[in-house]
Amino acid sequence: MDQSQPKVGIIMGSKSDLPVMQDAADVLKELGVEFEITVVSAHRTPDLMFSYARSAADRGLKVIIAGAGGAAHLPGMVASLTHLPVIGVPVRSSNSIDGWDSILSILQMPNGIPVATVALNAAKNAGILAAQIISTADESIVQNLIDYKNDLKAKVEASARDMGFES
Amino acid sequence: MDQSQPKVGIIMGSKSDLPVMQDAADVLKELGVEFEITVVSAHRTPDLMFSYARSAADRGLKVIIAGAGGAAHLPGMVASLTHLPVIGVPVRSSNSIDGWDSILSILQMPNGIPVATVALNAAKNAGILAAQIISTADESIVQNLIDYKNDLKAKVEASARDMGFES
Amino acid sequence: MDQSQPKVGIIMGSKSDLPVMQDAADVLKELGVEFEITVVSAHRTPDLMFSYARSAADRGLKVIIAGAGGAAHLPGMVASLTHLPVIGVPVRSSNSIDGWDSILSILQMPNGIPVATVALNAAKNAGILAAQIISTADESIVQNLIDYKNDLKAKVEASARDMGFES
Amino acid sequence: MDQSQPKVGIIMGSKSDLPVMQDAADVLKELGVEFEITVVSAHRTPDLMFSYARSAADRGLKVIIAGAGGAAHLPGMVASLTHLPVIGVPVRSSNSIDGWDSILSILQMPNGIPVATVALNAAKNAGILAAQIISTADESIVQNLIDYKNDLKAKVEASARDMGFES
Amino acid sequence: MDQSQPKVGIIMGSKSDLPVMQDAADVLKELGVEFEITVVSAHRTPDLMFSYARSAADRGLKVIIAGAGGAAHLPGMVASLTHLPVIGVPVRSSNSIDGWDSILSILQMPNGIPVATVALNAAKNAGILAAQIISTADESIVQNLIDYKNDLKAKVEASARDMGFES
Amino acid sequence: MDQSQPKVGIIMGSKSDLPVMQDAADVLKELGVEFEITVVSAHRTPDLMFSYARSAADRGLKVIIAGAGGAAHLPGMVASLTHLPVIGVPVRSSNSIDGWDSILSILQMPNGIPVATVALNAAKNAGILAAQIISTADESIVQNLIDYKNDLKAKVEASARDMGFES
Amino acid sequence: MDQSQPKVGIIMGSKSDLPVMQDAADVLKELGVEFEITVVSAHRTPDLMFSYARSAADRGLKVIIAGAGGAAHLPGMVASLTHLPVIGVPVRSSNSIDGWDSILSILQMPNGIPVATVALNAAKNAGILAAQIISTADESIVQNLIDYKNDLKAKVEASARDMGFES
Amino acid sequence: MDQSQPKVGIIMGSKSDLPVMQDAADVLKELGVEFEITVVSAHRTPDLMFSYARSAADRGLKVIIAGAGGAAHLPGMVASLTHLPVIGVPVRSSNSIDGWDSILSILQMPNGIPVATVALNAAKNAGILAAQIISTADESIVQNLIDYKNDLKAKVEASARDMGFES
Repeated sequence: MDQSQPKVGIIMGSKSDLPVMQDAADVLKELGVEFEITVVSAHRTPDLMFSYARSAADRGLKVIIAGAGGAAHLPGMVASLTHLPVIGVPVRSSNSIDGWDSILSILQMPNGIPVATVALNAAKNAGILAAQIISTADESIVQNLIDYKNDLKAKVEASARDMGFES
Repeated sequence: MDQSQPKVGIIMGSKSDLPVMQDAADVLKELGVEFEITVVSAHRTPDLMFSYARSAADRGLKVIIAGAGGAAHLPGMVASLTHLPVIGVPVRSSNSIDGWDSILSILQMPNGIPVATVALNAAKNAGILAAQIISTADESIVQNLIDYKNDLKAKVEASARDMGFES
Repeated sequence: MDQSQPKVGIIMGSKSDLPVMQDAADVLKELGVEFEITVVSAHRTPDLMFSYARSAADRGLKVIIAGAGGAAHLPGMVASLTHLPVIGVPVRSSNSIDGWDSILSILQMPNGIPVATVALNAAKNAGILAAQIISTADESIVQNLIDYKNDLKAKVEASARDMGFES
Repeated sequence: MDQSQPKVGIIMGSKSDLPVMQDAADVLKELGVEFEITVVSAHRTPDLMFSYARSAADRGLKVIIAGAGGAAHLPGMVASLTHLPVIGVPVRSSNSIDGWDSILSILQMPNGIPVATVALNAAKNAGILAAQIISTADESIVQNLIDYKNDLKAKVEASARDMGFES
Repeated sequence: MDQSQPKVGIIMGSKSDLPVMQDAADVLKELGVEFEITVVSAHRTPDLMFSYARSAADRGLKVIIAGAGGAAHLPGMVASLTHLPVIGVPVRSSNSIDGWDSILSILQMPNGIPVATVALNAAKNAGILAAQIISTADESIVQNLIDYKNDLKAKVEASARDMGFES
Repeated sequence: MDQSQPKVGIIMGSKSDLPVMQDAADVLKELGVEFEITVVSAHRTPDLMFSYARSAADRGLKVIIAGAGGAAHLPGMVASLTHLPVIGVPVRSSNSIDGWDSILSILQMPNGIPVATVALNAAKNAGILAAQIISTADESIVQNLIDYKNDLKAKVEASARDMGFES
Repeated sequence: MDQSQPKVGIIMGSKSDLPVMQDAADVLKELGVEFEITVVSAHRTPDLMFSYARSAADRGLKVIIAGAGGAAHLPGMVASLTHLPVIGVPVRSSNSIDGWDSILSILQMPNGIPVATVALNAAKNAGILAAQIISTADESIVQNLIDYKNDLKAKVEASARDMGFES
Repeated sequence: MDQSQPKVGIIMGSKSDLPVMQDAADVLKELGVEFEITVVSAHRTPDLMFSYARSAADRGLKVIIAGAGGAAHLPGMVASLTHLPVIGVPVRSSNSIDGWDSILSILQMPNGIPVATVALNAAKNAGILAAQIISTADESIVQNLIDYKNDLKAKVEASARDMGFES
């Protein structure tokens, strides 16, 4: 995993979120965006969260992806501590009520402090969104995103052909 | 308002929460418990929240009551920063979805970091609960709580008599 | 299990709640707080519930933890019968609708009768909260709580190191 | 209001529930069933609730209608204290979350202790249901119920005619 | 199974509801109340539903228990066709959304046509409620209900003793 | 209102649903589809509902639109009594819980008996859908539908121009 | 599978929806209605969706059945692109929150653009509804629908007989 | 309003969404980011939506903000048609069920096509998020964002002083 010059920081509230959050790392790699990944807990390591978020811009990060479950405060608190765009991934963790708590405590941020929320467990989409943000300043990523979209299309078209349908 | 030696700190995420949170102050006064009250925002003043929560025990506070609405991170973040018991009041603020976001983002804390959550907008109950906690070490408050319970009972009995029913 | 001088009473509506409620007992033991644990049903043994709650303060209890599922009336009814702080644990029992009934019938208590509600199935947090309440009058527990918080932090930091990240 | 020989006891958790619960009284009067009505709070007058429920059968009551809002424990607790059928009316009170808490804490009773729950605020239906129960042993009420059903039908048919439709 | 003189009719919308609805039959047998049990579908056999409900009182039934899942119209439609009390059992069937559809389409009947709704899948409670209704006119059932309540109590007390607690 | 040869029958559970259901009539008139409109209650006039639904096809109706609120059984019961397509309109009536009960008791029909459900209170869309169904056999309606779609488009384009945007 | 002259087009957002959507195809075959079936994704193949929907009427289709899960835009977008009636099947896909997202994003279409929504995963009912629509112009299908209804009835009656009940 | 060189495109499904969406425009102006604003309906002007989204990148837009209510397909469909980051604003419109439909149909996008969702009605946060994205490539905006955060902080501190609290 190339972390020489990470532009995206992926953090999660607990190591148990890794099976979900790994998708963000995988798609960023596929799209050619450098990233770092670690565990930072809002509730168990608040000082680490502060220093991570406060130093993120100076360390060269452009986007932060934060995943958490239950009363998920990590994405919103990181957003309060940096001017970088923060993407929140609601995780359907074992202590979550079908994901509703994760979604609402990430999505419903007050005016002034946005979190870019993606679907429940949708760390892959968080990665793609981060790449889209990076691509607004980096033309080399644009083509990767277009290719990615074309691959999605090709797979659906193949499914249609498998079902005997010619479009 | 007597704040000479506050044992309970009442904080809220926004001044717009004051009409709800004032009930906590009023009932603490009625029950003879000293308190302080102010605005501390998790998202807009994270440093103030840190210093408030980290210094609370040393300043002599025994309990913190924190009210917030929407993606309500204040009670949980304060709980992460102190070993004092923290009571959370979900506020049905204007940016809340009928209070569900406020409730879930306060209630559903992960293992290790409890928040004693009361009903939606129930700042009065937060105040009573704080007094109950204080009373575990202060006999003078016990009688006030017993009197308060007796008053509640007397009012219901009066209602029953008004409806022509003798119990 | 040392029950010579219990300060915390743990009760549950059904023996089937024990796998959840045992966490409260375990963490209280870890934090050095004496407790008792038993089954008391609001609906099947209302007299026992009355006598348990009414005698709790005189028997020396300082806090009651009550867990129940479905239409969970035990925590609120006990709170109506004592001036002690009562912590409610909503249990996702087999007759519960994903826990929503348990949560709402414990949390949404009327003004005057608070229940300190914790997250769904979060008996561990109920135990920690009880210890925090006891610690407001017992300095020996404060250090245990601080150590417990430090352990939580150390585990997250170890996870971060495992993922190759140096904070 | 004839309360000389009440067969149905109507109780409510708070006098503020009376505008809803009055409908039960009105329809019982219309159906010729004697009743009594008063305020009994599970949380503020638990002893009164105990004595009311425990003495109900001996006093000649055949059915109890209990209305309450929020964490509504009155119907279920009364059901635990008597073998009479208990009808629960979830009230959308000011401290309720759109009625969901009232409904779930009345409806979701554990095995062994049923509460016959009617729709949110549907005290009129509670009264009709009580009359249906009374009618299983009292033929004089049966005809009143049949007349009541016929009136409902006639009103709909009149509406249809008003809209120019002949059935 | 004694069906010589059934007083309670148990019906269900589909044979797949039988594993849930059998509990009603079992507890009625235990409580000494005669019943009949069959399948009647509101949507697939509307004529059968009409004749079943319309003839129920004349055939000697005193109470009808109707269970159904999803858009559960059976209890409410039967209630519209008879003056007997109707008990509705929301079934968490395979085509139900966690039971919410079953509950709401049984519980939320309009004014004039009550259904006595019990908890999700709580056919046992439907049976007990039916026995309570029958008992208002049949003293022999009263003692069975009191014995049943005492058994419930004894089981909880035994659990408490198993946990080493003497009440 | 031309009802000489109605192809669509609009029915509603209560005259209080008329302000919502009138939209279906208005749009059918606009689209040139003949209809009839009346009140038929599943719960208060079950016989009328039976005869209405059973005779609908023979009377020349091609589609039935049925609106109801709360435990809304009218659309599903009508669908059980006819082979015609039935469109259900969930009404947010005064006795509904924010419309959820209306939606679920109309939408969640069991296999075999579909109801074509539209959005909450969306009687206009029910009318358009009925016209679409009629148009599958009546070319004269097709052009009206196409014109209707073009009008919708023109209004949005006018809004865009008002905001100073040229597409 | 006869697709020589399809009148119904069945589409789905992903091949993973096929196990659900196959039910629509099977029941259409049983009812004698010709259909075609394929995969068209609103989000991954928007151009294909456009051309499919825009050409549907000209190709002879009379009804479109569209199934999708999560943020399910396929049914509504197809409805925006054709004047044919569109039936939406909410699919409880792996990325769905218990189906609520699928239901709401299909059902809650704005005025002007209806989607005939069926129950969660109810592709069979979508097929029957499509056949009902086709039958409004094709008498040969009417008898098949009547036979289908009779079969449903016969199965329930057989269940009743199996349980020893003679209607 | 300066639209000479817009970097952010703000679109909404209906002109009735403008009172909500105007907040995005206002905060972008305050933060010094150029934008354009118009109405584009997914369901009423699908061709316009296609051309708007397909041409957005070539016209120089870097981010699209799309707001819609009910079955809100605009943000997701635009995201399917461009590689630019798309921010979705769920609008609590008059045809929405308390906003749940708007939220879920924007948030729950399938893998491959992210929408950066903000809180219900939170167009202001959508504007700030867009500015944060623009700032990743435009240093001049960074300081504006930092100033904006400082203003938020100053307002809370002023509230605290108003309440007589010195931090």
